[in-house]
Amino acid sequence: MKMILDLDTGIDDALAVAYALGHEEIELLGITTSFGNVTVDKAVKNSIDILDLFGQNDIPVFKGSDVPWGMDSYVPSENIQHIHGENGLGNIDLGVSSRRESPISAIDFMIQAAHEYGNLLTVVTTGPLTNLAEAIKKDRAAIEKIGKIVVMGGALTVPGNVTSFAEANIFNDAHAAKFVLESDIPLVIVGLDITLKTMLTGKDIQTWQSLSTKAAQAVTAFTTYYYQNEYDHSEFGGALHDPLAVEVAVNPEIVTDYLPINLTVETKGASTGRTIAALPRLNDTEKSAQIGLDVKGQDFVQRFTETVYRLLEAAK
Amino acid sequence: MKMILDLDTGIDDALAVAYALGHEEIELLGITTSFGNVTVDKAVKNSIDILDLFGQNDIPVFKGSDVPWGMDSYVPSENIQHIHGENGLGNIDLGVSSRRESPISAIDFMIQAAHEYGNLLTVVTTGPLTNLAEAIKKDRAAIEKIGKIVVMGGALTVPGNVTSFAEANIFNDAHAAKFVLESDIPLVIVGLDITLKTMLTGKDIQTWQSLSTKAAQAVTAFTTYYYQNEYDHSEFGGALHDPLAVEVAVNPEIVTDYLPINLTVETKGASTGRTIAALPRLNDTEKSAQIGLDVKGQDFVQRFTETVYRLLEAAK
Repeated sequence: MKMILDLDTGIDDALAVAYALGHEEIELLGITTSFGNVTVDKAVKNSIDILDLFGQNDIPVFKGSDVPWGMDSYVPSENIQHIHGENGLGNIDLGVSSRRESPISAIDFMIQAAHEYGNLLTVVTTGPLTNLAEAIKKDRAAIEKIGKIVVMGGALTVPGNVTSFAEANIFNDAHAAKFVLESDIPLVIVGLDITLKTMLTGKDIQTWQSLSTKAAQAVTAFTTYYYQNEYDHSEFGGALHDPLAVEVAVNPEIVTDYLPINLTVETKGASTGRTIAALPRLNDTEKSAQIGLDVKGQDFVQRFTETVYRLLEAAK
Repeated sequence: MKMILDLDTGIDDALAVAYALGHEEIELLGITTSFGNVTVDKAVKNSIDILDLFGQNDIPVFKGSDVPWGMDSYVPSENIQHIHGENGLGNIDLGVSSRRESPISAIDFMIQAAHEYGNLLTVVTTGPLTNLAEAIKKDRAAIEKIGKIVVMGGALTVPGNVTSFAEANIFNDAHAAKFVLESDIPLVIVGLDITLKTMLTGKDIQTWQSLSTKAAQAVTAFTTYYYQNEYDHSEFGGALHDPLAVEVAVNPEIVTDYLPINLTVETKGASTGRTIAALPRLNDTEKSAQIGLDVKGQDFVQRFTETVYRLLEAAK
């Protein structure tokens, strides 16, 4: 499966990269980046660093949106910094790679790849939907060619993680998210509804800790930072939000309940960023989104830790 | 199937009674009432009137809760009166029945029936959960014996109908609803998620209008009042909230997607009455509720209109 990962590269984004690299069915064509868990510049740096950590310096990284629609600047919230660290990777320094982003923009790379690979291409977004929204605005026909778009974002049946209404990726650019969800582009939605059922704890990564490679030590360190800080109920661990989106792309059967739905996003007041069914389109025969509502969570946590273990073991 | 209907008898409650009376597999043991769409006194009167309209004056009606938990009084909101009419039946007078409520309370009748019929008993609630909450508090062991409890209430994947967060039955006594949903009593939840997919329009009841019986004329009149006023998007008709709960009790397969879930109810601020997954119990193996998220809506609308047509045809 040819895949583009669209990231706001914090810790679970980095774990999604590791999972994709370790998964034998996934060919990672490139990483597109945006603001979100970090600034877009840090998202570029973290993406390059995590790729180079695994010797994948031939996979290109593209710089995308730096601010939400209608905003002049973006600074990650204190809570985001608490979860991902100030540098986005639990303040673990992976070493400075000399590599820079590729010269074309994230949006143009997405459009080019859509034209080139069409139905063979899968795009997985794990950050705000700003890049995808821009790509739809610039060349909708290209985006319509993409075989599958999996969006990590939203919270339908569970409370949000920014407010009790909103999940972070949607909250960070509610207007762009609304545009994408109302665009009628077919989407698979991986929200907190299922990612909160894939909780990673220290016990799950004990095998990683036994490895002495630099990669294993670094990944174990930032993963530990993450599961200790991500979730209010810290005894439950940290949710594998972004890695689960990769899994759903390659193995849709991990989700045991998909609800076909036409979604919208609230963009005003206290519930800004809330994802909810669009009432005027509730009884339309066509539904543009399939949202996952239940998942074989423990199966995925196990597959994830084993896949990343193999990657870490093989790395230097 | 032996059934108790727990109603706040407005129009769609009355339609639920008609559907239950017309359904050959349902034996209606009695109606328990509470405040909600109307005051409890009007709920008693409307319940007796609708039963007597169909010659069912041997089915007892019981008076229950008159106010929400923690409140001293209750008056239906303007919006409720807009939907159901000031008398709760579209201001259609069914004629004054001389019958009064039975001497024991709604709560005691529910408990007695639970002890008497146990697993054979089905309770369908279509109003606030105050009576059920009181029954659980008074004799939890009895309520645990009940074979099936179907609750019409809540909105999980769609906006509410009182506020964008809250459905009316839950909103009207959020504290009692929270108590019931967190009680671990097994519940089947029929919320706006599926009732808004069962929209009744004038076209659906054309066959009723052709009947000249007093019952047909009265039921057609208050049903017309309802579908013209119930829903913001009036071109879509009125939702068969309460009749669908009866259908789900007797024909669970009408729902095509049940999500197992542990729910809570928000009781503070602008989102009072919101039903949402209880995070601390998200990954518990046991789920106390099965909530319907998709339904064969048109199949039910057709079955409903045909069943009620046969009842109206046979009535005087």
